[in-house]
Amino acid sequence: MKTIVIDGLGLIGGSTALAIRQKWPDHQIFAVDVNDIALEFAQSHGLVDGGFDRIQDIAATADFIILAAPVSIILEHMEQLAEMQLKPDVIVTDVGSTKRQVMAKAKILTDQGIIFIGGHPMAGSHKTTVLAARADLFQSAYYFLISDTITDQQHRSAIKSLQSLLSGLDVKWQLISALQHDRVVALISHLPHIIASGLVNMSQDELSHSPLSLKLAAGGFRSITRIASSDPEMWTDILLSNSNTIGDKIEHFVRILQQVRQAIAQSDRDAIWNYFYSAKITRDSINTQAGRHVPNFYDLFINIPDQVGAIAKVTHILEEAKINLINIHILEIREETDGVLQLSFSNQKDLIDAKGELQRRGLSVVGGD
Amino acid sequence: MKTIVIDGLGLIGGSTALAIRQKWPDHQIFAVDVNDIALEFAQSHGLVDGGFDRIQDIAATADFIILAAPVSIILEHMEQLAEMQLKPDVIVTDVGSTKRQVMAKAKILTDQGIIFIGGHPMAGSHKTTVLAARADLFQSAYYFLISDTITDQQHRSAIKSLQSLLSGLDVKWQLISALQHDRVVALISHLPHIIASGLVNMSQDELSHSPLSLKLAAGGFRSITRIASSDPEMWTDILLSNSNTIGDKIEHFVRILQQVRQAIAQSDRDAIWNYFYSAKITRDSINTQAGRHVPNFYDLFINIPDQVGAIAKVTHILEEAKINLINIHILEIREETDGVLQLSFSNQKDLIDAKGELQRRGLSVVGGD
Repeated sequence: MKTIVIDGLGLIGGSTALAIRQKWPDHQIFAVDVNDIALEFAQSHGLVDGGFDRIQDIAATADFIILAAPVSIILEHMEQLAEMQLKPDVIVTDVGSTKRQVMAKAKILTDQGIIFIGGHPMAGSHKTTVLAARADLFQSAYYFLISDTITDQQHRSAIKSLQSLLSGLDVKWQLISALQHDRVVALISHLPHIIASGLVNMSQDELSHSPLSLKLAAGGFRSITRIASSDPEMWTDILLSNSNTIGDKIEHFVRILQQVRQAIAQSDRDAIWNYFYSAKITRDSINTQAGRHVPNFYDLFINIPDQVGAIAKVTHILEEAKINLINIHILEIREETDGVLQLSFSNQKDLIDAKGELQRRGLSVVGGD
Repeated sequence: MKTIVIDGLGLIGGSTALAIRQKWPDHQIFAVDVNDIALEFAQSHGLVDGGFDRIQDIAATADFIILAAPVSIILEHMEQLAEMQLKPDVIVTDVGSTKRQVMAKAKILTDQGIIFIGGHPMAGSHKTTVLAARADLFQSAYYFLISDTITDQQHRSAIKSLQSLLSGLDVKWQLISALQHDRVVALISHLPHIIASGLVNMSQDELSHSPLSLKLAAGGFRSITRIASSDPEMWTDILLSNSNTIGDKIEHFVRILQQVRQAIAQSDRDAIWNYFYSAKITRDSINTQAGRHVPNFYDLFINIPDQVGAIAKVTHILEEAKINLINIHILEIREETDGVLQLSFSNQKDLIDAKGELQRRGLSVVGGD
């Protein structure tokens, strides 16, 4: 029986608690959070065995301490832990979005012989509170472990203990340095958010001087700017905790834009075509790699009215025929009226079978040719 | 009875033919295309009454000529029309993606007293050929009409005739100058495509030097880069036909990125927060304006396994309860395993009713609180 302290009871902390609980029902799990409602919810729903306002109230009993607050809070609480008498074998870890500041701060713990392992599970959700906690939130997601402190046998065996504790999360472990981590997330997460928000701001700014509005914006603009709806507070924190690297990425991206601009100014058709073509090849290959995304040729399209039963009819036909639908999506082609239902299948046979069944039942189906 | 010639039988030309046919069954519709298969398909499916390889073969009989090829072809065919003896009252229009080049070329027609009205319906689709043609492709979309040639009563009445001919499209008409049009589409369509492709290329380039790959990229990166999968040929054409304006937009966007970069370098928390906050406000308001997008609080979320019947069960329950589901979407949170089904409703009552029904049937539902 181990004692786990989870510091920060949001979506990630709560989901981690649930996954540990399911895998290790005998372990004791305590949560720390300033939000009493979150603590009460977690206790009454059996996620944790007790809740505390301050990490000092419970950390001394812990075999594992999981710091699951925003990075700025993680840094503060690492200092508080350094002033406490922790169990000698305690393993301290975190799940912060950026890693260099955390790993630098970790020195105050490792200097005292406390084992610290930095971590970052790459999962997100539309929800951010413990109310949405799920044991399977991270399933098949990448979970970065930071190699910087993994310098001896003691840390290697601590990683094994941590991975065992968190084995219920069912993640793909990825060892990486703090530097490399912060560069990668700057590239594939932070820069995209900056770009999306910038595009929205610029468009709003330009259109505010015209009688037109962003209502005109069709599907392409909408999909590229969707993440601009993210939490400003969280993203301000993330940018400030990874500022140099993000600065470099912005610079690199600006250079790329300036190259395209030059190619356009010079009417360099080949350069422009190559730019779009190489992006298409890469982007299509991501779709193929990810199980949930399938190539277009396993998709069918059906015009449906937005009314009770239209989607149910389609899915019911496929269910009866025992055909596995791997995704279903109403395309955002028009604003207020009918939808186009996109049905995705995992292979050619399912697609052909589905098309046959749907046509036999009188539906007009496009695709699969 | 009028004679309509549609030059270019792709998705837009074909859908326009269908919409005219439904609204005006007595009109004769002829198509021009170099692709014999497209012509045969359109004839055999009753979209058009005849097909021709060259616009010279049929244009002389037309009361309306709709140029629906790519811009570079539209420009060529305008020159060919200028050399022909057309009906004196013919109305020539186009549906090209950019408008300044077309309107400049229109002079060779208007100098001869031929009425030309530039147009651009703002609808897209996942498909590009006549096989996907639908009479309702443009329903509720914006259809730009270019004001540059609307200088006298003759042109004003020609616009009325054209709008009447195309009334089956059920679009929102928007009068705009060619210059303003090309600026707006550069902003809300062309720049986003350049950005998405640039982000993909940069990420691929940087990750090619590391053991990691774009497989790591989670939902945010994927949604912002989805349009990078578009047709390189078409986008090269579009960029070259709107090069100066796009150059300006790239410059403006680069300035915005450099401002954020400076705010990050100076750890200017307020500036960064405002950047993300204003983008969020604007982006959320687009969602609210567009009928298909509803605010998050009318959404429910259900964990479902990727298996036969899971989606059908949910939609069947809603159908039985006569609750109108306006969208359904499997969230791309994880790659290979369970899905989270996002159900969107148009109002609070439907959401509450749906949640009750689904819970009563044993499903674990999150949202609507």
